[in-house]
Amino acid sequence: MSLLFVAPDRGLSSWKDAIHEVDPNLDVEIWPQVDTPKRVQFAVCWNQPKHVLDSYPNLKAVSSLGAGADHLLEDEFLPEDVEICRVVSHSLVQQMKEYVLGTVINIQRNFVHYIRQKDEQNWQPHNHPLASDVHIGIMGLGELGLPVAKQLSQVGYHVNGWSRTSKDIDGVTTFSGKEQLAPFLQQTQILVCLLPLTNETEGILDLEVFKRLQSPSWIINVARGEHLVDEDLIYALDSDLVKGAWLDVFSEEPLPDRHAFWNRSNIMITPHIASITQPSEVADQIVDNYKRALSGMELNHKVERELGY
Amino acid sequence: MSLLFVAPDRGLSSWKDAIHEVDPNLDVEIWPQVDTPKRVQFAVCWNQPKHVLDSYPNLKAVSSLGAGADHLLEDEFLPEDVEICRVVSHSLVQQMKEYVLGTVINIQRNFVHYIRQKDEQNWQPHNHPLASDVHIGIMGLGELGLPVAKQLSQVGYHVNGWSRTSKDIDGVTTFSGKEQLAPFLQQTQILVCLLPLTNETEGILDLEVFKRLQSPSWIINVARGEHLVDEDLIYALDSDLVKGAWLDVFSEEPLPDRHAFWNRSNIMITPHIASITQPSEVADQIVDNYKRALSGMELNHKVERELGY
Repeated sequence: MSLLFVAPDRGLSSWKDAIHEVDPNLDVEIWPQVDTPKRVQFAVCWNQPKHVLDSYPNLKAVSSLGAGADHLLEDEFLPEDVEICRVVSHSLVQQMKEYVLGTVINIQRNFVHYIRQKDEQNWQPHNHPLASDVHIGIMGLGELGLPVAKQLSQVGYHVNGWSRTSKDIDGVTTFSGKEQLAPFLQQTQILVCLLPLTNETEGILDLEVFKRLQSPSWIINVARGEHLVDEDLIYALDSDLVKGAWLDVFSEEPLPDRHAFWNRSNIMITPHIASITQPSEVADQIVDNYKRALSGMELNHKVERELGY
Repeated sequence: MSLLFVAPDRGLSSWKDAIHEVDPNLDVEIWPQVDTPKRVQFAVCWNQPKHVLDSYPNLKAVSSLGAGADHLLEDEFLPEDVEICRVVSHSLVQQMKEYVLGTVINIQRNFVHYIRQKDEQNWQPHNHPLASDVHIGIMGLGELGLPVAKQLSQVGYHVNGWSRTSKDIDGVTTFSGKEQLAPFLQQTQILVCLLPLTNETEGILDLEVFKRLQSPSWIINVARGEHLVDEDLIYALDSDLVKGAWLDVFSEEPLPDRHAFWNRSNIMITPHIASITQPSEVADQIVDNYKRALSGMELNHKVERELGY
């Protein structure tokens, strides 16, 4: 009997530690080091490679490492009789607030400059604007966008928000619908994308949008890679329409080695970590579902294949 | 008639612009490019070199570029009949809140790692702790320390505060006096120094303090360089007692080229910019005092040499 983690781009030792905090006797393995494939009965996965989940004849259930289970539902190598579940993390909103606040302060206060200057032994002060003069625009005012907007306003920034339907938020100037997108952008320097990915929002971060922003403008994308038209961002940076970008999500992840983003000094890249499931927060959920799977009990946070959630 | 800026390590073009926003007709010069020394009647200074302020025979008054005027009061080359004034900035508290919050998020969320990894084309996620598991300790709960502590608590961090006399602050666990320094440190990972510099606090950030912190520990110094025993920090870093440091202030500024801090990858250095006077915020004060000096009127925010403030 073993519990297997399959998540090639994640550091998994802290996951193993967190599981052992809950139950020190569990046999935890980390793919690709699997001694006896027959013993694997439960797998916890994030962006698992193809042809992995069909290698364990006694696999009873798989859990997503995170809140989303798309990577499991779409995996054609996952046998049909294997049940799917996910974990529920309560800190995702908090982490997103931290991430966006951190990137905004990094931009406003020139921290990236200073970190690079330090490595070059260069003492050079730069002026920075007052927070109240920094105009941030949040696209999407849902479960994540709303608390992010409120947090930024609380810290002292000038915050605009744009959403499909109109909203009224204390301390935030709100805009809604297609007809108010242009005035929203015209009053925004740092554009933060927290939209859901739909047919209407795919590719919304394009040259037309970048052209309307106040200069110097920055793009922060923490929603989905598909919101951004990559080549438009490169063009906008190279022609000084946009000053820089912080990107946490990409159409292809990990971001391919030859992608133009790597070579632009004003693009910051984080490896999809803005809001991630914390080992210590969900280890008990995983151990519980592992034991449920072994004993044939109903799983918690089960994902139904037919419904897709 | 000209207004001269003397501040060798500051970018002064934005100061010139801000002055011209207030009065486009003023003749503004930036040291060392001074065409006619006789025309200089007012100088705005920050860490001016020796033997500069005695070069202008018609100098009537000098203003500090910031809130402090120590560099003017201690300048033996400033003629005795030249009046001294300073500027009053209302954003210093706000800026300090931003800076400390930004450094804490950078530490918690591994941003320095990610910025460096980006430059090496390296996609590697790192786990990060929950904000509520990050224990921050603020030394000094005065004009700056108190609002910084409250802001960090509001964002979700676990905040301890230590001060000379006991205080009661919502959301902050407080400690006071020498006898409570040890328990304060034992519950702190990220130590933020916002103490005033006195005989009692000089050198307070030493090996004895570092040894008591929770691991992995970080030091943020935004008070005065003299609070920190430089060699103790180097020793603590090299022996893994301390994980890293963000330093904005130094015993000697600019930090000398050969200082050991430059060569430690886990020390971040910012050039004394945590909280600085903003050109747009005080340009009208400078123009007003310039005109007052020219016409012999009493200066605003005057500094009395005898009193030292």
